Amino acid sequence: MSRKTFLLAPDSFKESMTAKEVCIAMEKGLSRVYPDARFIHVPMADGGEGTVQSLVDASGGSLHTKEVTGPLGLPVTASFGLLGDGETAAIEMASASGIHFVTKETKNPLMTTTYGTGELIGECLDRGAKKILIGIGGSATNDGGAGMAEALGAKFLDEKGQEIPRGGGGLAHLSKIDTSGLDARLQGVEIVVACDVTNPLCGEHGASAVFGPQKGATPEMVQTLDANLAHYADIVFEQLGRDVRDVPGAGAAGGLGAGLLVFTRSELRKGVEIVLDYTELERKAGEADLVFTGEGGIDFQTKFGKTPYGVAAAAKRAGKKVIAVAGYVGDGIEALYDEGIDAIFGIVPGAGELPELLAAGPENVARTCENIARVLKFAD
Amino acid sequence: MSRKTFLLAPDSFKESMTAKEVCIAMEKGLSRVYPDARFIHVPMADGGEGTVQSLVDASGGSLHTKEVTGPLGLPVTASFGLLGDGETAAIEMASASGIHFVTKETKNPLMTTTYGTGELIGECLDRGAKKILIGIGGSATNDGGAGMAEALGAKFLDEKGQEIPRGGGGLAHLSKIDTSGLDARLQGVEIVVACDVTNPLCGEHGASAVFGPQKGATPEMVQTLDANLAHYADIVFEQLGRDVRDVPGAGAAGGLGAGLLVFTRSELRKGVEIVLDYTELERKAGEADLVFTGEGGIDFQTKFGKTPYGVAAAAKRAGKKVIAVAGYVGDGIEALYDEGIDAIFGIVPGAGELPELLAAGPENVARTCENIARVLKFAD
Repeated sequence: MSRKTFLLAPDSFKESMTAKEVCIAMEKGLSRVYPDARFIHVPMADGGEGTVQSLVDASGGSLHTKEVTGPLGLPVTASFGLLGDGETAAIEMASASGIHFVTKETKNPLMTTTYGTGELIGECLDRGAKKILIGIGGSATNDGGAGMAEALGAKFLDEKGQEIPRGGGGLAHLSKIDTSGLDARLQGVEIVVACDVTNPLCGEHGASAVFGPQKGATPEMVQTLDANLAHYADIVFEQLGRDVRDVPGAGAAGGLGAGLLVFTRSELRKGVEIVLDYTELERKAGEADLVFTGEGGIDFQTKFGKTPYGVAAAAKRAGKKVIAVAGYVGDGIEALYDEGIDAIFGIVPGAGELPELLAAGPENVARTCENIARVLKFAD
Repeated sequence: MSRKTFLLAPDSFKESMTAKEVCIAMEKGLSRVYPDARFIHVPMADGGEGTVQSLVDASGGSLHTKEVTGPLGLPVTASFGLLGDGETAAIEMASASGIHFVTKETKNPLMTTTYGTGELIGECLDRGAKKILIGIGGSATNDGGAGMAEALGAKFLDEKGQEIPRGGGGLAHLSKIDTSGLDARLQGVEIVVACDVTNPLCGEHGASAVFGPQKGATPEMVQTLDANLAHYADIVFEQLGRDVRDVPGAGAAGGLGAGLLVFTRSELRKGVEIVLDYTELERKAGEADLVFTGEGGIDFQTKFGKTPYGVAAAAKRAGKKVIAVAGYVGDGIEALYDEGIDAIFGIVPGAGELPELLAAGPENVARTCENIARVLKFAD
């Protein structure tokens, strides 16, 4: 038996382990069977929750916090990552402007703002970032990214030249966008937006109609919000010459997708592809004999851009097999076999309550990987 | 890739699947990956609950019922198996005299009798059995097997020549055992008793002290029961010339182990070994490329004679590898790796309640086996 190399590229197991912790548990189990193996740890993410942590861990970067303006205007402590290459930063918009900052009573997309996300971007500029990766899932907002742009120096004015109120409601009063004060450093920074949805800004598939209700919008509010975003898009087109209304993903995160396209040098990409590129996963898979991935849950949704799907695609291009482990194995996993996930194993040892199972995640990953390795060894 | 042969030799998954159903689920999963494989189904058991069903299924025999005398004297419907060889019968004593027939209020080992077990043996004789396999776990009794022998024609008499009361209490009055009426056919029948305990009939490790309490005996009752079994052993030795008091396993099932040794041509053996022999598992393992086993639960207790342990031992002797699946994977499984179980996988797909998991057993076994096969296929 020659010395094996295993590439370990899981996502986090939400509420149980960070992706890095999953890597450690995988190595623990596999090394019981292959004590001399080489293990390449690549904590993964798909642009959703945990992406900053995984990118920091994957690159040997650092995690920082900053007090910013929350979605309701109250201060919140947001985190961001400075990655190991010394020039890339990573942000999750939800960390500043996420739905978890509002309650059932306070959620109101007429009022919520992405201002804090803009402050986070500004902080990254202050830290010298040349590239910023932004995950935009989990937003509480529907302001088209106007708050974000305002925090970076743009002015959103009404007919009288007064600043309009923040939030998706205030955009009704928008008459003039003044970008003269926009942070000039933005021109020298590449922003890559992790965006897995293709919704346009407005209309029946737009931000307000599709995502507004889960942010607290009543049917009447949806109409207002949609009309306001359409008005905003009109002004943007007239005054800034950018037509982003129907760009796929413009409607992501309450139109933050559109706002980033308009006010920054950015591109929207699938989250997992950004992470795959940044971590050079395909090249690393090429060095490995076998790839392990995993996520808290794997089911029919996994093929819509979740980490195990992306890892499998990259590994397949590198000609390598992939084994996935998950805390929950749901319906429809058969579809993943064709996508390059060669085998999928649940880690749960038996009937049990979720809290205990979440706590036992590391040992269950280790035990499962150990036993997979014991089967792999049949071939040695 | 040459055509593979898989030997499928699981125990039942209690409350979820019979062993035969587990075999079917295993084949279902494995054949998705190896559609041309040959599958040898050997529903297994270890002498405990489900043994008759598994032996019937493994041999192509038939299951029958008979109304017999329950442990409290009330009629109960017991089942027994006539195996496919046409000359072997299989009985679980619990089916006639089991603890599940008594309640917390009615359990009383001074009263409970193995009479029904004797009736079942008699029925097997009537059916022409030349060999009877008897599993003796789960008894409600502490009568030394006197009830069993009485049902087969022995008489247990007091000083006045009157029949003593049935149950562990009645033995106090025993003065004379009359075996003249004992069913003569017993001499021509080989009885193999599945017995995994080594307890003697009497004393601190005896039937009354160790198993009496779980059958409802108070500390005072334990003293009485133990004294009665000692008295019974004395009479047996004096009048029948058999000293079984310290034979390992004599104390099994409230002394039914002793009773069978005295009144029938029987030997006590480990349950799983009886089943391994009867099913010729080692020979069949020799024909297979790989062996699958499994049980509802696998943990540190498995190595004390449970089915996966026995299957692994037989497979190891045949030089074959073994993979086990289980609904519950508990602590201490590492010890099983050295015993020939090469890998162990849980089948549970995620956090969940037991009733749902029990109902989903077949699909979970199939999915898990399919994914194991997908890994095995790496080597093809």
